[in-house]
Amino acid sequence: MQSVIPVPLPQNAYAIAIAPGSLDHIGSWLTGETLTLKPQSKILVVSNPMIFRAYGQRVIDSLTQAGFQVTSCILPAGECYKTPATVQKIYDAALENRLERSSTMVALGGGVIGDMTGFAASTWLRGINVVQVPTTLLAMVDAAIGGKTGVNHPQGKNLIGAFHQPRLVLIDPQVLKTLPMREFRAGIAEVIKYGIIWDAELFEKMEQAKRLDQLRYVDDELLQEILTRSCQAKAHVVNKDEKESGLREILNYGHTIGHAVESLTGYRVINHGEGVAIGMVAAGQIAVEMGLWDQESCDRQLSLIEKAGLPTRLPDGMDIEAILTTLQSDKKVQSGKVRFVLPTAIGTAITTDQVTSDMIRSVLKQM
Amino acid sequence: MQSVIPVPLPQNAYAIAIAPGSLDHIGSWLTGETLTLKPQSKILVVSNPMIFRAYGQRVIDSLTQAGFQVTSCILPAGECYKTPATVQKIYDAALENRLERSSTMVALGGGVIGDMTGFAASTWLRGINVVQVPTTLLAMVDAAIGGKTGVNHPQGKNLIGAFHQPRLVLIDPQVLKTLPMREFRAGIAEVIKYGIIWDAELFEKMEQAKRLDQLRYVDDELLQEILTRSCQAKAHVVNKDEKESGLREILNYGHTIGHAVESLTGYRVINHGEGVAIGMVAAGQIAVEMGLWDQESCDRQLSLIEKAGLPTRLPDGMDIEAILTTLQSDKKVQSGKVRFVLPTAIGTAITTDQVTSDMIRSVLKQM
Repeated sequence: MQSVIPVPLPQNAYAIAIAPGSLDHIGSWLTGETLTLKPQSKILVVSNPMIFRAYGQRVIDSLTQAGFQVTSCILPAGECYKTPATVQKIYDAALENRLERSSTMVALGGGVIGDMTGFAASTWLRGINVVQVPTTLLAMVDAAIGGKTGVNHPQGKNLIGAFHQPRLVLIDPQVLKTLPMREFRAGIAEVIKYGIIWDAELFEKMEQAKRLDQLRYVDDELLQEILTRSCQAKAHVVNKDEKESGLREILNYGHTIGHAVESLTGYRVINHGEGVAIGMVAAGQIAVEMGLWDQESCDRQLSLIEKAGLPTRLPDGMDIEAILTTLQSDKKVQSGKVRFVLPTAIGTAITTDQVTSDMIRSVLKQM
Repeated sequence: MQSVIPVPLPQNAYAIAIAPGSLDHIGSWLTGETLTLKPQSKILVVSNPMIFRAYGQRVIDSLTQAGFQVTSCILPAGECYKTPATVQKIYDAALENRLERSSTMVALGGGVIGDMTGFAASTWLRGINVVQVPTTLLAMVDAAIGGKTGVNHPQGKNLIGAFHQPRLVLIDPQVLKTLPMREFRAGIAEVIKYGIIWDAELFEKMEQAKRLDQLRYVDDELLQEILTRSCQAKAHVVNKDEKESGLREILNYGHTIGHAVESLTGYRVINHGEGVAIGMVAAGQIAVEMGLWDQESCDRQLSLIEKAGLPTRLPDGMDIEAILTTLQSDKKVQSGKVRFVLPTAIGTAITTDQVTSDMIRSVLKQM
């Protein structure tokens, strides 16, 4: 059971490989058919302490065996460290190990590691190779694909960043076994998103699953299907719109309000996937009230989100006006108007700037 | 007397306009035929205190009159402030003024302002517009063109950066009248470089000039010719090789040793253009000793550099071994080998990694 999804971008084509057990063979993947890196070239593995303890040695052994000169850089874990200051540590390691233009950074970790390593790679010597090896479900189906890299500004998520496509995304589903339950669910939120905006069949397959709230209840076949279909959805959209001028916007479904909630709770109380879950519930209800979506589909979305053990209401004591203010500093604002992605059917979504503050306020008050 | 040079890059075409007096008409340039920015959109003018005092109000008036919402961000002057920390100040201003994806940063200043503003624009919201309005000769003929942006790492120049093409480069030669003499000469160093690597006619025109060491001895016609031919040379090379994979390397003529000298003297004792002048003298002599160039041409280069009032020898007490060590951490290193650009005739240069440390050492010892 193995899928290789091509992302045929005109300038920066690459592949997403979903292959159980691939972590022990990363050296071959980087010198094989999918990607041909210069033998003897330098690789900097960037990771966090926990992930590196669990998988670092296996990755380094495989890369070393394939002939690479491997060094590593361990960063503190957590969204709160996704800052310019932490990226500076990657630059320091790049300098210390004298990375060259032909060198490669390998991001071994979740979205935070992937975003920062991608950004460091895009800006070191004005751009070197990066290979994404995501270790969380969220990173596998979202962050690792599409070339978005960046860090947070104290006042807003991902305000600083660059587009930098990976040379390869290597996904080993087996690493999910050690993923904390809450993080697994966070990833499922993005998978549900793909079901709503792009792939009705994926949505239905998830509806049919007995349980979705813990990995151990999801069989290997469904997991491979979830990963493959999610990566395909993201790759399709990104492929058609590399720089986020139009279509790619639909990937922000659930993210407009989601980011605000995440940000206002300091990225801790509510994690990214949980924010997206809450954001999808809100956006779904807005779509219904605007007459764009039917209540039945909206209820099916709600049920699936609940089945995944994800939150469907705002955290207690959340200040709704603070959410509205935060929306105004969101990247997705154009000429002062907040843009929303709204579903029109399960599997289809549109974007609009016609959502009023009153509408947002009214829906959030019910949550 | 006005030149508009198109830079027809496939994805990011833009123009370089060389127009005396254009600073007072920047608003029209940004909404005219050359570049059509959205009226009412936001513009952040980034500058340093001295330049802003001299030209800021004129620029802001013209932009405001054209309908833009204009704010400004003033940064400390000097290469030593070309750091991630200073770029952070631009991010803060961008956030405070809620710059959007349709907004534009205008870099009003020399290379330091241009590089940092370009980098901030390339990474804010993963990329917004930047217009370069260079106010030094060096920035006009080099830094403002080609999309290289970036900041320094404490241990090396421009190690952190991105490729981000400007939407327009607007050059007003009249601003050079207030440029300090030493900075004018620094710009002439790059112009001599274009003569050596690309444009023998430009070289000869400069040889024919009575004096080149101060702007007041250079007539308007020669100045326009110098600016136009230099920008054309850079644009031609960049056009053929946007991401510096091959041809563009020749623009680094004089820069390999030049950067090292600049860096080792803390970017103060020796400025960029002076470093390049010293680097060209060294590279020229290396080319002669390797049998690639004739001594007569090399002597003509030396005479022209002297005529421009530029240094042709290493500063007193310079540690040659430190230069060699610094070369090893240069961006232009590939697989541990330092790459050099060497002239083979006036108007033509090649790149090579065949220059030995002993050769470098021996030439530097004579300087």
